[in-house]
Amino acid sequence: MAEPPPNRQPPSSRTAFIEATADLMRRQGYGATAISEIVALSGAPKGSLYFHFPGGKEQLAAEAVSSAGERLRGQIAAILSSSDDLAVCIGRLIDALAAGLERSDYQRGCPIATVTLEAASASEAIRVSADAVFGSWLTVLAARMRADGLDPAAAERRATFVLSAVEGALILARARGQLEPLIAVRQELTAGPFGR
Amino acid sequence: MAEPPPNRQPPSSRTAFIEATADLMRRQGYGATAISEIVALSGAPKGSLYFHFPGGKEQLAAEAVSSAGERLRGQIAAILSSSDDLAVCIGRLIDALAAGLERSDYQRGCPIATVTLEAASASEAIRVSADAVFGSWLTVLAARMRADGLDPAAAERRATFVLSAVEGALILARARGQLEPLIAVRQELTAGPFGR
Repeated sequence: MAEPPPNRQPPSSRTAFIEATADLMRRQGYGATAISEIVALSGAPKGSLYFHFPGGKEQLAAEAVSSAGERLRGQIAAILSSSDDLAVCIGRLIDALAAGLERSDYQRGCPIATVTLEAASASEAIRVSADAVFGSWLTVLAARMRADGLDPAAAERRATFVLSAVEGALILARARGQLEPLIAVRQELTAGPFGR
Repeated sequence: MAEPPPNRQPPSSRTAFIEATADLMRRQGYGATAISEIVALSGAPKGSLYFHFPGGKEQLAAEAVSSAGERLRGQIAAILSSSDDLAVCIGRLIDALAAGLERSDYQRGCPIATVTLEAASASEAIRVSADAVFGSWLTVLAARMRADGLDPAAAERRATFVLSAVEGALILARARGQLEPLIAVRQELTAGPFGR
């Protein structure tokens, strides 16, 4: 079973490992994801995994959290600048998450929530990575709230509230296997007291 | 390694296994929790585990979700009937969750969110159990919203929104290792547009 010693790997192996890890952890979490499964899904040579990630699964998970988080941050930023009407933007953000959840047969909710809950207590590297990702999303959301006229403290608070409501609705929707919780939160955030 | 065949076990073994499972899954999730760890924490004889839970870890997890969910449902109901002022009740509910999180050094958030996210796609038994628990909490919350004057559909929507915001804030708080996200959501739900 000896693999040839890893040497100069093409840059794509590294990315393939991270993307496979991110996808598996999004659907089933950190604990259930085995290194062998990551290797199989990545299509990259097994021997190169510890070359790129000497910290093994924990390092892979922390980097997968960062990578998935940065991708979603870009999508959030694009959606939040898609209209002058904040409620329209928030509605579109929830619609995009709901569409992704439904398309994946309720497997793909928040890319980092599962691993955060599993590993926040056991791995400081993963906790720090998850906190940085949530922080980056909150920064984008809070900037949009400020553009809508809230002062910085209120914008930060409102951003935390909106992100929390969406994260929680994604949990409830995965449990129910239906979009209703996301639809309810969308309605409250866009047509309730906040949307008026 | 042969254990004596399980026969008539005292009823407390069953409960001890369920409570140990619930505690471990709350802190570290389903994937990271080994049967051997459940047995060790429970203090119950290993040989009786498969007697009580022929479905093994999956059955234990589903029953632990139900058990922890029912306990928290009772606490939610008590807090929601502790004042005529809905905002006061919601503030107390969040304070209780925040206190538990802080007391456990940010290990114990929602007792069922982690296992729900990990196992909703892989185990129909766990998903159904988690959905029933969230549904039971929503029933209590919606009843309180109706008592506050909302019509049934609006009460259901508002209950989903409140539970979602709290669940999401518990994720953010675990990632940050601080209570701020819960405090922000508390503020928005009790002094923001909803609290007025």
